[in-house]
Amino acid sequence: MNRRDFATLSALALAATKLPSIGQTSPDRKPVGYAAIGLGTISDIFMRACANSSKAKITALVTGHPADKGKKYAGLYGIPPTSIYTYETFDRIRDNQDVEAVYVGLPNSMHLEYTQRAALAGKHVLCEKPMAISSAECRTMIAACHAAKVKLMIAYRIQYEPLWNRAIQMISSGAIGQLQSFQGGFYNHQDAGAWRLSRKLGGGGSVLDLGIYPLNAIRHITREEPANFTAVVSTRDHSGRFAEVEQSIEWTMKFPSGIVASCGCSYGQSGPAFLTVNGDQGYLDMRPGFFYDAPRLSGQVSGQTGGKQIDIAGNGRNPYQFTIEAEHFASCIRNDREPLSPGEEGLKDLLAIESIYRAAGTPIA
Amino acid sequence: MNRRDFATLSALALAATKLPSIGQTSPDRKPVGYAAIGLGTISDIFMRACANSSKAKITALVTGHPADKGKKYAGLYGIPPTSIYTYETFDRIRDNQDVEAVYVGLPNSMHLEYTQRAALAGKHVLCEKPMAISSAECRTMIAACHAAKVKLMIAYRIQYEPLWNRAIQMISSGAIGQLQSFQGGFYNHQDAGAWRLSRKLGGGGSVLDLGIYPLNAIRHITREEPANFTAVVSTRDHSGRFAEVEQSIEWTMKFPSGIVASCGCSYGQSGPAFLTVNGDQGYLDMRPGFFYDAPRLSGQVSGQTGGKQIDIAGNGRNPYQFTIEAEHFASCIRNDREPLSPGEEGLKDLLAIESIYRAAGTPIA
Repeated sequence: MNRRDFATLSALALAATKLPSIGQTSPDRKPVGYAAIGLGTISDIFMRACANSSKAKITALVTGHPADKGKKYAGLYGIPPTSIYTYETFDRIRDNQDVEAVYVGLPNSMHLEYTQRAALAGKHVLCEKPMAISSAECRTMIAACHAAKVKLMIAYRIQYEPLWNRAIQMISSGAIGQLQSFQGGFYNHQDAGAWRLSRKLGGGGSVLDLGIYPLNAIRHITREEPANFTAVVSTRDHSGRFAEVEQSIEWTMKFPSGIVASCGCSYGQSGPAFLTVNGDQGYLDMRPGFFYDAPRLSGQVSGQTGGKQIDIAGNGRNPYQFTIEAEHFASCIRNDREPLSPGEEGLKDLLAIESIYRAAGTPIA
Repeated sequence: MNRRDFATLSALALAATKLPSIGQTSPDRKPVGYAAIGLGTISDIFMRACANSSKAKITALVTGHPADKGKKYAGLYGIPPTSIYTYETFDRIRDNQDVEAVYVGLPNSMHLEYTQRAALAGKHVLCEKPMAISSAECRTMIAACHAAKVKLMIAYRIQYEPLWNRAIQMISSGAIGQLQSFQGGFYNHQDAGAWRLSRKLGGGGSVLDLGIYPLNAIRHITREEPANFTAVVSTRDHSGRFAEVEQSIEWTMKFPSGIVASCGCSYGQSGPAFLTVNGDQGYLDMRPGFFYDAPRLSGQVSGQTGGKQIDIAGNGRNPYQFTIEAEHFASCIRNDREPLSPGEEGLKDLLAIESIYRAAGTPIA
């Protein structure tokens, strides 16, 4: 993404808040048909998001439970029985002309396989974050999509959320002066037995699922890759819930420009989901920052007559962020453009995540 | 401080918010007379704080500018010309029966000398934070006050602030479950030429003056000493302002119990002054947390019917925290008790600060 792309997206995102109809397809362009792979919580949200759009449509389902879950969602979204696939029959999706893209809403460790199989079937891939459980897997996925000439987008959200884009525009326009530091975090609870607590399915601890939010946001805002890391992990809950992944992790990053950051996340804490951006002339605080409903932006920006406090509530209810995502990828497919969060973005986050776990002394790959 | 002391203080602090008269001395006890050493910004606040109290009174001044600053404050607080000292004549304060204690409001590097001289003069010492510029100096100050049989208190504020005490009581009573992590910071601006940017006067960078707030608060809440540190420093402003101390620092700490923390501070950033405390059942956020006016407490605490959002504005305007401090030390002097933030607390913070700078690769002592 270059600066012009960024400015265009920002303008579109801002316009979108005022003109909900901007996403409408011109009459001669049918919506992009998505197959939802995996029918868990996140796919449910994505399917509802597509139902709110005229540019994206759920046209097929891939599930291990075709008779119940499959039937239920097929009924909801008008999908014919012939477009309900199992993981075994998935590769036949190649012949389904109603499907142009897939949405991979599976546990982390399955992203690689289904991205590869979708690419081989000639379908574009919108894959949930984290892209995969190692940078090596990410590279394989990028290569597979490249070889198959299909597009690959990682389902990050802040790149597409209007208030995030407004905050990033403010930063770019110098509202807080020269960037100095970030503090970010995402602390949430996972019950014992959740797949995210399984090293095999999750691929690692909460950095892959939660810490990736401030990490990706900071990388997106700085347009730099972090060069130096420190990290500390801890597990106070000895019930066995955290036998395979850490309960808590806090880390620091330093970027080539000298920008520094400290972040944390956890599957065993209750805490905020936030990002604070400090400049030498002001600061911005997204709090909440990473939930499905709209974020809130506060802080102090510099003005001609001194610092000014701001407090701006975002606008949008779940699944609005997924609708923007689905439409962005649909637009990329229709217009043959690269998505704003391509596979390379997912790869760079995984490289940083691997560095974080290495710095903590608990390498994941 | 044991748990009973803590409970007593908390009760007093809470009562104080409802009954401003609780600090009144019984008629037979005259206020403790303080000499203010150094007449800069912080001493100005302390003197105003004493003017609001019937337990503490400014009875002498120590200044390099007796003819102007000294005369001005003497007029404001009814201090006779014989009780205005210079740094050269300071030791004569020994003979001033109106002075029972001194308030050390000098640059960090001067705390050692004036604490020693005050102790030799038989005066109790209320010394601003940071206690000194090295742990070695702190030990010397503790020994000097011990030898002279005078009390030594470090002028921390959160130990005395009612809403902080309420938050700490909530944490102690399990409102957020088992403590897991802290995120804290204090980012502020120092102009070129400020004494805090001088290594000689400040003793180090912003951790001594700003980072010490979340550090001390976390140590106070956990009642543990941090055992492992990582840190990263950075300076993006190459104007020369940060020739002697770092512009930015972010660090992590791990405590013996497994509690982890990430913190940051800066003399060259605009940013919040905050502490977030995450438990496994809820979290508390003090934001603003460390300013002179009252803090604000928000977060989510666990209840019998699930999490409950809280948002509590503190009550008090500058210099109320200094009044509570001055009265606490006065009460310790009258009742021969140890202050809640004795020299040993200051020493422990300096030990941690030295560890932080060592971890950053920029040792200060």
